[in-house]
Amino acid sequence: MERIRKREESGGWVDASGYQAQGVACDIRGRKDGRLDLALLVSSQPAALAGVFTRNRLAAAPVRLCRKVLSSRIPVKGVVVNSGNANACTGARGVRDAEQMQALAAEVAGCQAGEMLVCSTGRIGQPLPMDRLAIGLESLRGSLAATRDAGWQAADAILTSDSRRKVCSVEVETSQGICRVAGMAKGAGMIQPDMATMLAFLCTDARIKPEPLQASLASSVQSTFNAITVDGDCSTNDTVLLLANGASGVSLDPGGPAWADFEHALFQVCADLADKIVGDGEKITKVVEIRIEGAASGEEAHQAARAVGNSLLVKTSWFGNDPNWGRLLDAVGYSGARLSEDSLQLWYESVESEHSVPVFAKGRVFAEWKSSWIALVSLPRFRIRMDLGQGGSEARIWATDLTEGYVHFNKSE
Amino acid sequence: MERIRKREESGGWVDASGYQAQGVACDIRGRKDGRLDLALLVSSQPAALAGVFTRNRLAAAPVRLCRKVLSSRIPVKGVVVNSGNANACTGARGVRDAEQMQALAAEVAGCQAGEMLVCSTGRIGQPLPMDRLAIGLESLRGSLAATRDAGWQAADAILTSDSRRKVCSVEVETSQGICRVAGMAKGAGMIQPDMATMLAFLCTDARIKPEPLQASLASSVQSTFNAITVDGDCSTNDTVLLLANGASGVSLDPGGPAWADFEHALFQVCADLADKIVGDGEKITKVVEIRIEGAASGEEAHQAARAVGNSLLVKTSWFGNDPNWGRLLDAVGYSGARLSEDSLQLWYESVESEHSVPVFAKGRVFAEWKSSWIALVSLPRFRIRMDLGQGGSEARIWATDLTEGYVHFNKSE
Repeated sequence: MERIRKREESGGWVDASGYQAQGVACDIRGRKDGRLDLALLVSSQPAALAGVFTRNRLAAAPVRLCRKVLSSRIPVKGVVVNSGNANACTGARGVRDAEQMQALAAEVAGCQAGEMLVCSTGRIGQPLPMDRLAIGLESLRGSLAATRDAGWQAADAILTSDSRRKVCSVEVETSQGICRVAGMAKGAGMIQPDMATMLAFLCTDARIKPEPLQASLASSVQSTFNAITVDGDCSTNDTVLLLANGASGVSLDPGGPAWADFEHALFQVCADLADKIVGDGEKITKVVEIRIEGAASGEEAHQAARAVGNSLLVKTSWFGNDPNWGRLLDAVGYSGARLSEDSLQLWYESVESEHSVPVFAKGRVFAEWKSSWIALVSLPRFRIRMDLGQGGSEARIWATDLTEGYVHFNKSE
Repeated sequence: MERIRKREESGGWVDASGYQAQGVACDIRGRKDGRLDLALLVSSQPAALAGVFTRNRLAAAPVRLCRKVLSSRIPVKGVVVNSGNANACTGARGVRDAEQMQALAAEVAGCQAGEMLVCSTGRIGQPLPMDRLAIGLESLRGSLAATRDAGWQAADAILTSDSRRKVCSVEVETSQGICRVAGMAKGAGMIQPDMATMLAFLCTDARIKPEPLQASLASSVQSTFNAITVDGDCSTNDTVLLLANGASGVSLDPGGPAWADFEHALFQVCADLADKIVGDGEKITKVVEIRIEGAASGEEAHQAARAVGNSLLVKTSWFGNDPNWGRLLDAVGYSGARLSEDSLQLWYESVESEHSVPVFAKGRVFAEWKSSWIALVSLPRFRIRMDLGQGGSEARIWATDLTEGYVHFNKSE
């Protein structure tokens, strides 16, 4: 039996011991449509906290508040999250509203304000409807539960343009017993690599000190949530939080025997949720893995991958099942990464098998394989691999196509 | 009477003295549709040369050849240009083909190969059909003319996804007599600021030394061709060339009294052609001027302008006439430019009048003006002005919206 097991039919946040959740509708959007839009996530015990946040300089008020809680180094008890309104670019009022939301949620959860984290997602530049939010929070009193239904209600309440719920949990067997890593996420647009790119709330019932917890989270985020792109836009509210409450009785530290397993489980949860986000990209039809090899540096590998993954001409050609490799080369050509026509190689690949079809190698085009190129780029998932021939650095990102549906969907809110 | 006059019904290249042109169809695309696709532009006298080229590291073979001609500092006699095939990513064969195209065109024009420039535009990664190109060049022998029809044939022959011809000419009255600046351009997609972004062929019948000619061209390109964006993609073939043959008998130099007028005329021609390119962006419905003020540095002002002009969420909202200022703020927020919510100001403005409507200022939203915002962003041309409140640097670019038509048009070639 595997020491690390992904749980079927995950309930998300509630799957780890000592965590409860609930989601309610409080009409944040003002549409009276009964949509779930407010989630409260709690830990029965004070938990160590780690967090990664957007690099947007106009970080929303709740993001700034979360950073403050994180830097206070106080163990935390919960997170309150609303969808439908980002509380971003809302000035001094936005700061007051976030603080009031924190205080109200703490009171409902029975903890101090400084132990409560606050997240918002949705439209930028609108004040939060604090009256309706307060009613919603009040209705959460006494309804928190550790059931899968409660976890799903919470996971549903944080969604915006997402078409489906995003939850995941993994069990880790250690010599001290079983511990768990669980979580939920939202995100479908404004997704860009190399900046935290959405909301994700992760928890573990292992006991872990804040410093190694933060290091593990930062490392996992780098190759998961920060390696996906839908539209190249980085939001004002992106936040990944990880709580560790120790409720399983398992204590972990980087020197211990189960640490690698914990890190692997955390990575699995992050990777699963990141994949669910990119796969739910707004009106997409394809997820394309872009693997850059042979770059002169890690930064250049990322530049090259991002240029390909964010090129409108590349993304539209994917939508059309067009193996337009000229646009791929054009994009890496302007990426800023060092490369030359004489050393560049390109393949289309299957992600399910070892099928790898050459496209271009050092000035030669393998046009005889065109029918295979078309077959691969017509799949809902495929890989583009490029060797820049400059060095030993690599990068991998997951990008989506760009469709007429995306434009239609986003042309007004 | 003005000393600088734009010519109505310009013939483009042929409007300056001592320049001839012609365009023919030689079926570069292999579609047998009779489309004009080969242009020859010549100067009756050896001309000083200036040039600005793409920064794409996979610069096409003809771009590399042009750079070689420019660095040889030999006066030039002409330019041969084909559309329908970029001769990019074509390896050693592409280099040989570009050189053969140069030699054949030089022979037809009656000059040395080293005096002939070569440009290509169109699909990447296909070898040039040299047999048909040679027949086309041969058919140009003896057909070169200084008529407007010949100028138009040449201007039409360089177009790809453009929907219309792009020509412009300006006369400058000096104490030595009249001289002219004229030109033609192509470009509609793969348009991105801060890299030369299309093809433009400019000429003047003033006599000007290569060094000041190059400096003038580089300066004009910076705020015209390099300040437009359609899709953020920078091509492998972008080239702007400027020839100065002295046929007007007017000699100009930076110390002389007419130099400022010449520079202004060159700027006018570049600005007019750049405007024609962005206004002909693939399936666009809007051209939006983005003016960033108060940036901490010129580079940060450009970063901010580009982030706004290339944001998919911003571009789609323009298409939908949606004054979604939150997306504008989000984009400058992740641009890398220093800014803060407390010092940022934003306006929607008319480009035709002095109409300026406040949107956001230091945390305050002017929602009472929403109907004016909608009226402005529903215009085919409007301006977004942002003051970052960090310093004295500015930047201006012109960007287009992103439409379902663009995606449909580019999903396959």
